[in-house]
Amino acid sequence: MKILIRDILAVLPDGVKTCSVAVEDGVIAAIDNIPPGFAADKTIFGSGKMLIPGFVNAHTHVYMTVFRNCADDLTFNDWLFGRILPLEDKLTPEDCYWGSLLGIMEMLSTGTTCYNDMYIFTDASARAATESGIRAVLSRGLTGGADDAEGGQNRLRQAFAEIEKWRGTENLSFMLAPHAPYTCDTGYQEEVAREARRLGVRIHTHISESRAEMNTIQERYGCTPPEIMDKTGLLTDRTVAAHCVYLTDDDIALLANRGVSVATNPVSNLKLANGVAPVPKMLKAGINVALGTDGAASNNTLNMFKDLSLLSILHKGATGDPQAVTAREALDIATKNGARALGLTDVGEIRAGMRADLAVIDLDRPNLQPLGDPVAALSYSMNGSEVETVMVNGRILMENKNFLTIDRDRVLYEVNAVCERIGIR
Amino acid sequence: MKILIRDILAVLPDGVKTCSVAVEDGVIAAIDNIPPGFAADKTIFGSGKMLIPGFVNAHTHVYMTVFRNCADDLTFNDWLFGRILPLEDKLTPEDCYWGSLLGIMEMLSTGTTCYNDMYIFTDASARAATESGIRAVLSRGLTGGADDAEGGQNRLRQAFAEIEKWRGTENLSFMLAPHAPYTCDTGYQEEVAREARRLGVRIHTHISESRAEMNTIQERYGCTPPEIMDKTGLLTDRTVAAHCVYLTDDDIALLANRGVSVATNPVSNLKLANGVAPVPKMLKAGINVALGTDGAASNNTLNMFKDLSLLSILHKGATGDPQAVTAREALDIATKNGARALGLTDVGEIRAGMRADLAVIDLDRPNLQPLGDPVAALSYSMNGSEVETVMVNGRILMENKNFLTIDRDRVLYEVNAVCERIGIR
Repeated sequence: MKILIRDILAVLPDGVKTCSVAVEDGVIAAIDNIPPGFAADKTIFGSGKMLIPGFVNAHTHVYMTVFRNCADDLTFNDWLFGRILPLEDKLTPEDCYWGSLLGIMEMLSTGTTCYNDMYIFTDASARAATESGIRAVLSRGLTGGADDAEGGQNRLRQAFAEIEKWRGTENLSFMLAPHAPYTCDTGYQEEVAREARRLGVRIHTHISESRAEMNTIQERYGCTPPEIMDKTGLLTDRTVAAHCVYLTDDDIALLANRGVSVATNPVSNLKLANGVAPVPKMLKAGINVALGTDGAASNNTLNMFKDLSLLSILHKGATGDPQAVTAREALDIATKNGARALGLTDVGEIRAGMRADLAVIDLDRPNLQPLGDPVAALSYSMNGSEVETVMVNGRILMENKNFLTIDRDRVLYEVNAVCERIGIR
Repeated sequence: MKILIRDILAVLPDGVKTCSVAVEDGVIAAIDNIPPGFAADKTIFGSGKMLIPGFVNAHTHVYMTVFRNCADDLTFNDWLFGRILPLEDKLTPEDCYWGSLLGIMEMLSTGTTCYNDMYIFTDASARAATESGIRAVLSRGLTGGADDAEGGQNRLRQAFAEIEKWRGTENLSFMLAPHAPYTCDTGYQEEVAREARRLGVRIHTHISESRAEMNTIQERYGCTPPEIMDKTGLLTDRTVAAHCVYLTDDDIALLANRGVSVATNPVSNLKLANGVAPVPKMLKAGINVALGTDGAASNNTLNMFKDLSLLSILHKGATGDPQAVTAREALDIATKNGARALGLTDVGEIRAGMRADLAVIDLDRPNLQPLGDPVAALSYSMNGSEVETVMVNGRILMENKNFLTIDRDRVLYEVNAVCERIGIR
């Protein structure tokens, strides 16, 4: 399909300008220099609109939309062990399928075109992603160790089977996901690191999210979470570490030296009372920082605009430096840094040759008038509801707020039925 | 006009329940016990919707919407003295009128029904407020002292004239607004305090917003901003103090003892790198804490949902206590505490006898499914775009997102013309 987006205010790598963008075979074919005779199957008129690269949500648990607003104002441990894990035990693969579709709708409707998911059921998440057409990087969450050897092996086998089954599927790739240093013992961590190397896949994990985790790891191993995960071989330039709230300066240097990408989750970290990640220090150390929403159980949305906005103001307030994270840096973190974290070299920027993962934003809103600096408007004035049309790989998935690949009302019905069954409504 | 809102999920003072609400003569006439023979001129069907008391934006500068996204990533002093004040010098009263109407549209569209404004031109703001039908508390910003005696007197005279001219206007009341301890000398502060007592009006001011202010006041008077303002008589139970980021424990005790209401502005405080106000400590001390957006020059919206959301998560993260500000506390802060700060005894709650300042929210959104706890949904999952219909004093001002009292397109046109003239687009 050939798409022409005409005369739109586009956020390009080197600035913002009004231009026309041609899309062909899933790729941004040209910016402004539209080939003569380019016969568009579809034309989008860009007047009064803005074009951005779709957001890359670098850390989430999409199926968790079913747990929205059901576990609030709790400590991290009460939230995870007291509320979420027992609820998770009640979920079937089908529940996760519907929850994932709901999450994908929410992400598309707020301009996210790619996400990095950690979940519990193989297949259900992959089915939801591929049916919707969104770009996804999936990983079955892995926990295990000496006291749960069989469980750990089962989960690894599920991950292998899933990777094998879906190999080569468009817009889909896989990682291995050792859940966290406190849920995987060192033997299991080493095994997962080995298997990731064997399969040539990346690592998706949680590191240094809560004070409780710091204490647990300190007691168990006498070191910090990044230090123990480095010893087991999990810190590499193919690792995405979510959270990283509690880091010593040595930890930051270690993550930088190993080339680890960090997915920061400012909304979730505040909501669960975990604190503020040292993002400006990480950026200064040269760490590739990406942005994620975490799951709707702790966010309580999958709206990247909310995290983008918080990312851009939180560190100003926390450090006293109004340029701690600028609007442009925040946007890059939410797009191209995310793509880099996930190993996607052709995603995250509006450039000829890149995949056409794009969001069209309607500017005719009281909160976007006057627009002022368009990049500031993205971080500071938008709330996500302004996103109108979204394409992934050159395929339009949401058009004028209508989902083209997902049966919206069916998904809402099924998700509410799930919640009723597991007793959270 | 009689309005019946049928079978809606309503956020009442003691909880959330599905009920019907009758509105008559601007007042909530009944909840559920609808009088027999109540003949509604208009019926709103509440299925799939939620009813909340309209937000009270307890500190803002509405005309500043014209400065949206034009002064970002700057220090407080560079922002105020380097950028905003020189731009303000270029504004005419007519510019402020259009900017105020734009701000009022943004507030109505995100569920705010009442605001506490500090501005520069008398009349223009009052005209915009009354034409729109929103509830407003207005104050001409006052600066002055020995080195600007005539200016200070002029501004006071403008404030008096305005109060006189608009006295008794529906939905409108006035305060006096000594801008801040660093822009009013002690003689001027004393004079304003005296005049406020004489006129029987409240005080709206900024206190302890930035580190620069702390240093200035310490050098000038050898004490803290609240201490100097207490000496001049400005701290009373009829005072609304915006910001209050930098407070000693003694300052908190002083504000509590004097019965001062604090309007906290979390988005603006982070954005301008000023930091995090000690809201949990203030609540513990018994201070009436309200919530404000501040102006769009530093927020960069007037969307109370954004501040509500940040208020409810920021202090969890800052203190490590997930109940530092709960979802319900945050909602009360954004509604009834605001009304109390402004001296409005019949606003801020859905109760029979209260003014019908109400917002209807559409729940049929991916980000509000499943809804879970409705109050948690307000703080954690909504972004403001879900607000559908808004009434103030029983008069519908926005219906299904259409403004009934404001010429939307005219306002956008005029505001953009202002921005072009003063050179910020």
